[in-house]
Amino acid sequence: MADYTFFTVPMSRGQIARWALHEAGADYEHVLVDWANRPPELVGANPMNKVPVLIHHAPEGGRVITECAGICAYLADVHPAAGLLPQDAEKADYYRWLFFAAGPLEQAVISRAMGWVVPDGKSGMAGFGTYERTIEVMDGLLSSRDWVCGARFTMADVYVGSQIDWGLNFGSIPPLPSFAAYAERIRTRAGYQSAKAVDRDLIRAAKG
Amino acid sequence: MADYTFFTVPMSRGQIARWALHEAGADYEHVLVDWANRPPELVGANPMNKVPVLIHHAPEGGRVITECAGICAYLADVHPAAGLLPQDAEKADYYRWLFFAAGPLEQAVISRAMGWVVPDGKSGMAGFGTYERTIEVMDGLLSSRDWVCGARFTMADVYVGSQIDWGLNFGSIPPLPSFAAYAERIRTRAGYQSAKAVDRDLIRAAKG
Repeated sequence: MADYTFFTVPMSRGQIARWALHEAGADYEHVLVDWANRPPELVGANPMNKVPVLIHHAPEGGRVITECAGICAYLADVHPAAGLLPQDAEKADYYRWLFFAAGPLEQAVISRAMGWVVPDGKSGMAGFGTYERTIEVMDGLLSSRDWVCGARFTMADVYVGSQIDWGLNFGSIPPLPSFAAYAERIRTRAGYQSAKAVDRDLIRAAKG
Repeated sequence: MADYTFFTVPMSRGQIARWALHEAGADYEHVLVDWANRPPELVGANPMNKVPVLIHHAPEGGRVITECAGICAYLADVHPAAGLLPQDAEKADYYRWLFFAAGPLEQAVISRAMGWVVPDGKSGMAGFGTYERTIEVMDGLLSSRDWVCGARFTMADVYVGSQIDWGLNFGSIPPLPSFAAYAERIRTRAGYQSAKAVDRDLIRAAKG
């Protein structure tokens, strides 16, 4: 059995987790989820009933990890030899931007896609403030450095990079020069390319 | 100078970061932010223009950390002697539930408070699915164990616990027995009590 069982759907946020698995060099097998015939172990593992879900077959039993950013952080942590963890001086940026992208940025982009508007005077309650401010902050970060933590690629780039890459592809974030240049950088990663090729082939095969 | 400068407002999510500082045993001084006269170093440090913001005065310069969950994760990481980091078998739960609480749970609670409704057929796009499902999942977790990672308190409990504690106080989550019992457990922590006392006194003093 492979070290990890990875429940996913090719055209989904599961692509983020697969990229993380490839960057970590993890030994995994995927299970493509057919929503009409859900594998019972998936339903038990994640009552949110969504993918991606990763099960790490550890000595003490199966460890379930959900949430794309959680999967990224976990894999970086348990595969230290892959060099994806932050060094001391990079840790503040690592955690800050992982949680920024998983929280305010995700909320801002989804709220806009849903057509939700923050009522006047409530921008303090919504942690993202406004969509425009959130995008400005990401633009400021990525205009000033090559990678989330500075000069070196870390696992934070898998998650933040996926949000930017996906957002550019779907038009949910604006095509600013800093975003386009960052997306070009992440697309040069061998792990990105090998992971995306798997999902691309699966999507193509499903179309027949 | 203290090791950390902590920009906060007493009646805010800054209470989460202060609790984390107390659990970590960090040497900090707080700066109470007057929004009408914002300290320039705060505006420069966090263009999102919100608190809490933590600056760690490290040898190579000030490290800025934002996002409550990011501050929790950072402090656990750089203060390993406090024993708030997960052990190997706890890491999956640690990352999973930190990101679940900072992402889907936060989004579900805020969306409900704003009166936003997920259109039919779009629950897959909104990562939290529905408010009800998100609450059920948290209830399932906290009915089955004392702490987020199982038998032992970790920094994940500071963040998840704050979401539950705050939600119960403000009525944004339902008063389920599992939530009430968990809130009772977190309120016994010395770090919780000492941190909350500081903010309570500041709020009282501001009222005159």
